[in-house]
Amino acid sequence: MRSVEVSFIRSVLDGRWGDMRDKARKLSEDERFAVVVGEDTETQRARVLERLQALTEYGYSRNGFPTRYGGTNDLGRSITGFEMLAMGDLSLLVKSGVQWGLFGGAILHLGTERHHEAYLRDLIELRLLGCFAMTEHGHGSDVANLRTTATFDPDTDEFVVRTPDDDAAKEYIGNAARDGRVAVVFAQLVTQGESQGVHAFVVPIRDDAGRVLPGVRLDDCGLKAGLNGVDNGRIWFDDVRVPRDNLLNRYGDVAADGSYTTTIPNAGKRFFTMLGTLVQGRISVAGGAASATKVALAIAIGYGNRRQQFQRPDGQEVVILDYLAHQRKLLPALAKTYALHFAQLDLVTGLHETTGSLDAPLSREPRDDPARRELEARAAGIKAVATWHATSTIQACREACGGSGYLAENRLPGLKADTDVFTTFEGDNTVLLQLVAKELLTGYRDAFGDLDLLGTVRFVADQAVEVVVERIGGWRLLQRLRDAAPDITETGSLFDHDWQLAVFAWREKHLLESLAKRLRKAADADDPFAVFNGAQDHLLHAARAHIDNVLLNAFVAALEKLPAGAEQDLLIKVCDLYALSTLEADRGWLAEHGRLTATRSKALVAAVNQLCDDLRPDAQTLVDAFGIPPAALDVPILAGRPT
Amino acid sequence: MRSVEVSFIRSVLDGRWGDMRDKARKLSEDERFAVVVGEDTETQRARVLERLQALTEYGYSRNGFPTRYGGTNDLGRSITGFEMLAMGDLSLLVKSGVQWGLFGGAILHLGTERHHEAYLRDLIELRLLGCFAMTEHGHGSDVANLRTTATFDPDTDEFVVRTPDDDAAKEYIGNAARDGRVAVVFAQLVTQGESQGVHAFVVPIRDDAGRVLPGVRLDDCGLKAGLNGVDNGRIWFDDVRVPRDNLLNRYGDVAADGSYTTTIPNAGKRFFTMLGTLVQGRISVAGGAASATKVALAIAIGYGNRRQQFQRPDGQEVVILDYLAHQRKLLPALAKTYALHFAQLDLVTGLHETTGSLDAPLSREPRDDPARRELEARAAGIKAVATWHATSTIQACREACGGSGYLAENRLPGLKADTDVFTTFEGDNTVLLQLVAKELLTGYRDAFGDLDLLGTVRFVADQAVEVVVERIGGWRLLQRLRDAAPDITETGSLFDHDWQLAVFAWREKHLLESLAKRLRKAADADDPFAVFNGAQDHLLHAARAHIDNVLLNAFVAALEKLPAGAEQDLLIKVCDLYALSTLEADRGWLAEHGRLTATRSKALVAAVNQLCDDLRPDAQTLVDAFGIPPAALDVPILAGRPT
Repeated sequence: MRSVEVSFIRSVLDGRWGDMRDKARKLSEDERFAVVVGEDTETQRARVLERLQALTEYGYSRNGFPTRYGGTNDLGRSITGFEMLAMGDLSLLVKSGVQWGLFGGAILHLGTERHHEAYLRDLIELRLLGCFAMTEHGHGSDVANLRTTATFDPDTDEFVVRTPDDDAAKEYIGNAARDGRVAVVFAQLVTQGESQGVHAFVVPIRDDAGRVLPGVRLDDCGLKAGLNGVDNGRIWFDDVRVPRDNLLNRYGDVAADGSYTTTIPNAGKRFFTMLGTLVQGRISVAGGAASATKVALAIAIGYGNRRQQFQRPDGQEVVILDYLAHQRKLLPALAKTYALHFAQLDLVTGLHETTGSLDAPLSREPRDDPARRELEARAAGIKAVATWHATSTIQACREACGGSGYLAENRLPGLKADTDVFTTFEGDNTVLLQLVAKELLTGYRDAFGDLDLLGTVRFVADQAVEVVVERIGGWRLLQRLRDAAPDITETGSLFDHDWQLAVFAWREKHLLESLAKRLRKAADADDPFAVFNGAQDHLLHAARAHIDNVLLNAFVAALEKLPAGAEQDLLIKVCDLYALSTLEADRGWLAEHGRLTATRSKALVAAVNQLCDDLRPDAQTLVDAFGIPPAALDVPILAGRPT
Repeated sequence: MRSVEVSFIRSVLDGRWGDMRDKARKLSEDERFAVVVGEDTETQRARVLERLQALTEYGYSRNGFPTRYGGTNDLGRSITGFEMLAMGDLSLLVKSGVQWGLFGGAILHLGTERHHEAYLRDLIELRLLGCFAMTEHGHGSDVANLRTTATFDPDTDEFVVRTPDDDAAKEYIGNAARDGRVAVVFAQLVTQGESQGVHAFVVPIRDDAGRVLPGVRLDDCGLKAGLNGVDNGRIWFDDVRVPRDNLLNRYGDVAADGSYTTTIPNAGKRFFTMLGTLVQGRISVAGGAASATKVALAIAIGYGNRRQQFQRPDGQEVVILDYLAHQRKLLPALAKTYALHFAQLDLVTGLHETTGSLDAPLSREPRDDPARRELEARAAGIKAVATWHATSTIQACREACGGSGYLAENRLPGLKADTDVFTTFEGDNTVLLQLVAKELLTGYRDAFGDLDLLGTVRFVADQAVEVVVERIGGWRLLQRLRDAAPDITETGSLFDHDWQLAVFAWREKHLLESLAKRLRKAADADDPFAVFNGAQDHLLHAARAHIDNVLLNAFVAALEKLPAGAEQDLLIKVCDLYALSTLEADRGWLAEHGRLTATRSKALVAAVNQLCDDLRPDAQTLVDAFGIPPAALDVPILAGRPT
């Protein structure tokens, strides 16, 4: 059998926007982007701003914007480029996300032509730096209840933006502490004495010379665990006045007389339509987390392949990746990273296609596209799973490198610290999984009535999808297997993908159905919160099972597209390891529900060990195929030098 | 029923050296020890050295040394004080551990009167700062094979210390980069052309003015993930000559003519006797990890009790610790922290008592105390479990505090980063668990012959216990239950401690017996390494099961000593949560081995949820009882201030 071609696997992983990945690899050769550790906060912030400027030279900022404002109208390309940045300077990644994804995205998606005309060219080229001021000190996950107000004053044709107290101060806002000139501020719009819910407003915070404007108070969040190249800060507004035009008025507007108009009369639906624009950020964070995970795995596996410790009986020292315990730390995580990669490729394509052309005329109608709603839930779930996977995998890689893994020069501390907040920003993971579960539960609404009437489920995920939608079957294979009422018995091989898919699908379905039954009780309960809360772990389990299933289906679908050969054979084993190690981790539950006998459960554990052994010789190939730029892996630990 | 008295639980937790804990609490009021974040490395190093000096004013350094050199001969008190330091500045903790525990401990335990006379007074009072130079770049876990040499030259009556190449450079050595004047260097002793294995030598590295001495090369390890107040460095020796007297000659000596004498003729046994002195370091690290975990839990639970997010159906906002998912993140970890605390109290007492008086005359005979050997294995296992528990719990606490948890001012980033290396220093956790397993396996040696003849098991744990010893029954309850051939069936209550103890004991026993059977095959195998390696996950599981059992027994024994009352009732629930959440996490294995039916397995999950709900109102009490000094919890997140 011919040997595996790394370049072939790489091209499969690179996917549709592979040329953008190559461009990003090229960029990493530019010394201005070299990895630097140990700078103090001010130096690091200055450097990251310079790098952001350098990115514009590479046209990095243009992809996600319409052609008429200097963009190139290629959203998938934009996200792919962002994903690749995460192999290098993660502060740069996040600052670029703040500037172009969040601030720019809010102007683009919530504003109208006058805002696009006024801001897009400048923000793309970094003549205008901006903030995305949504989170408040007291409200992070529950942003519908944030408390900053923007009250319309018809006498002056202005909105008056006010922070009522410290709890309502805008918190953790990127670009606020140092570089931002304006902020897109999310506030309760009040006009004619009535609140119309959360809307976004453009509010200047510094003048051109960088001086803080009157009525604005800024504070620096100071040192963080990581991402210290990003200038996060807090903002208070003391009756700051902005012209009426500064309302980003795509979905709701105020006339000169103070009358409010909207194309989405339902306030909840309007709010969640606005929040739907956050999906891009979540997909970007998931991709960034995956990139950082890949770098960590490449370092730990590269080290595991050269580091020796303890001797065999014949006196020969053992390469540590030969130890089963070491393989167990790294190889199932590597397999899941592959699964996440394929799911991410699907997400980015889905975002690109459901968003459509950025050059199309702006619609003010709410989006009513089931594919888009499914994408939003899937993005939320994959963001949660990908970022937790990054946290646990980078931690394991650090430990797998011992003392060397603790030194900043070997990058693992930075990768860990910089990505740590990914699990709680752009939506707290636990909240996001509840959002996923709510979306899935809507498929069961016949079982227990309209979810909106069932107050208890407001807790689940009011945050981002409020409307009750039909559950859509997102994955061909999953659906086929469900319809077939799969036989999940002792007989099949553990390595049979149809069996794996059937178990994953059954697990998800069973968790959801039993969850729906439990939650139905809330309708009649004296304390519906108690019923909901008692099932919260069940609900999170169901959401995880769903995402596990999404990942497996994405992986299997990718395998089906490959030509037969050594690469397909290898990736089939990687997929097996993902599937079986996922089931192994949940085998208690599977046994409880009659899906695993004792014998088969033990066989599952043995199969994971066997796959670790089988894949161990190809571990290096599998990380090489990620196509990580050499500059990102230029660390002493891989060069074998002690200094 | 009367309410729980926090002070009573605190006094139980404080244990035998409670007055030392109070002294440490007092010390934390001294502003010189205030928590500071965001200093650059050089400032932090200077500050930590000042703090180390201030510790001597409090007599902190004297407890672990003999009276005749200015000590107070109270080892348990010394470890207890160290443990408390870990609630504050963790760099100070580690630097003090390097200076007094490792450097001072090596002089005390490996040296003889002339070394004590020459160094102890000065090192206690910090007139002499020293390094413990064991680890090399190429050999961390496998220190028996380290490659620095100390060759005796009878012509000059000196040892010549040499670093043969970069791989043998001393690595991660605390006090090396900045403050150390001498190093205790572990090197292969060569005399009369023969190597006598690893011995320790006192080697000066800097003069009194801090200038590096000729033949010594020092390098700074630079920025680390955390602990940047500790000046870790690398050391190379280029034929550095030291007088013969600088050999720490308690167990092996060289005469003027170059002849080697020892009271422990077996080289392996000699080496492991020397390493036995490391047990104190491991116990200290376990205690330090537990302290940092307690601080993190106090922050996250305090925040969880005040932070509100999302509304109940009646519009009231929910305190986040009321959510089951939040309780699941924090309360089982809190319960395990209690279990670890009681096991740690036993460890410290065991160390204190098996060490005996530090004022006693020095024996040069190898220690042949079974209680001490059991203690060494137990310390290794608890160190591994406590430090992994710290890593995962502090991570969970960080996430439970959202964005606030990511800010340095709220301490969680520092707690995480500073303790991260605990899992791999003072013995890599995976290696330590193998050491535990080897110790346990010796009880089964009749089943498969002498372990020493079975080359394969050299991999298990040659690092620290080489001699084959009898397995000793360390815990009364465990032993009693084993002897009773416990009935582990459907019938008992999950909350019955006898049932819990029986399951824990059975699990350990079954894992060990089946492991012994698997390893026996290695004796006849063509590739014994493959047999060993294929069982490595099994072996680690057995070691973990043992330590789980040690923790449960320590907890139950502590409960038995309490008077009946509200405090005992509460702690019984905490113990239940530890026991049942541990079993829940391994319920797949238990089901595989016929110890849990599907029904009972589900009941286990429900019981953990129920316990979370039951304990939630007392969560604050349980962290208050740790007696963490207020200064350690003086963080904005608990004061509710946004800045």
